[in-house]
Amino acid sequence: MPVSSSVPVGAADPAPDVNSAMCPSRLILEHVTSRWGVLVLAALLERPHRFSELRRRIGGVSEKMLSQTLRTLERDGFVHRDAQPVIPPRVDYSLTPLGTEAAEQVWGLARWTESRVAEVRAARTAYDAAKQP
Amino acid sequence: MPVSSSVPVGAADPAPDVNSAMCPSRLILEHVTSRWGVLVLAALLERPHRFSELRRRIGGVSEKMLSQTLRTLERDGFVHRDAQPVIPPRVDYSLTPLGTEAAEQVWGLARWTESRVAEVRAARTAYDAAKQP
Repeated sequence: MPVSSSVPVGAADPAPDVNSAMCPSRLILEHVTSRWGVLVLAALLERPHRFSELRRRIGGVSEKMLSQTLRTLERDGFVHRDAQPVIPPRVDYSLTPLGTEAAEQVWGLARWTESRVAEVRAARTAYDAAKQP
Repeated sequence: MPVSSSVPVGAADPAPDVNSAMCPSRLILEHVTSRWGVLVLAALLERPHRFSELRRRIGGVSEKMLSQTLRTLERDGFVHRDAQPVIPPRVDYSLTPLGTEAAEQVWGLARWTESRVAEVRAARTAYDAAKQP
C-alpha cells in the first residue's frame, strides 16, 4: 500500500527503541540510569525518605544534584513528592507504582554490582598486567 | 576484642555499598549504567558485534565514546575483545559470563523503558500542567 500524505499524524509512530538517538525512551532510560537516579530509586524502594535522609543515605550527592534528580524523577512519574504543611516544612519522597517497577530493576543491579566487586577487581588486574610493556 | 595494629590489612574490608562514595562498587555501577555502557551491554546480549556494527546499532555514539566505553567494559571483565589477524583488521566484541549477568539486567531495563513511554509522557504532561501559573 503506498504511503500517502493522508496517513493521520501519529498513526505511524515507530515502536520505541532506546538505540534510536531521537526516541523518547532513550532519555527516560538516561534518567533511570543516571548517576544519582539509580541510587535514589534504589533507596526509595526500601522505604520513603525525607530529603535530608536521602542526602545522608547517598554518599557524595550535593543538595543541588539531589533536588534536580528528584524533580526529574517526579516529572517522569516515578517519584511522588509529599510536602506536609507543618513547621518546619517536611517533604517526603516515595515511589509511584511506575517508579517501583523501575526501582526494582535498578535495585537488583546495585546489589549485583556489590556482589561482584572481587571479580571486577581481578579482571582489572589481569587487564592491566596484559597491557604492561 | 580491642582493635589492634595486628589486624591483617584487608581483613576488615566493609561490605560493598554503592551508597558509599568511596566504595569500588559505586564506580562499577557507574560503568554498567553509563549512557553508552547500558546500550553496549544490551546490544551484546543479543549477539556479538563488530565495532562498526555497534557504531551503527547505537544511534548517536561517536567512535571515541564507543572505544572508551568498550575499553572500560573490557577492563572490568564484562566484554571480551577478539582481534582477528586478518586484512582488513576485524575486531569482535562479545560478553563474558560476568558481562552477561550485568547485561541481562540492563537489557530488561531498556525493554521496560520502551514499554512505558506513554505513561511517562502522560506523567510529564500532568506535572507541567500543575506547574502552570
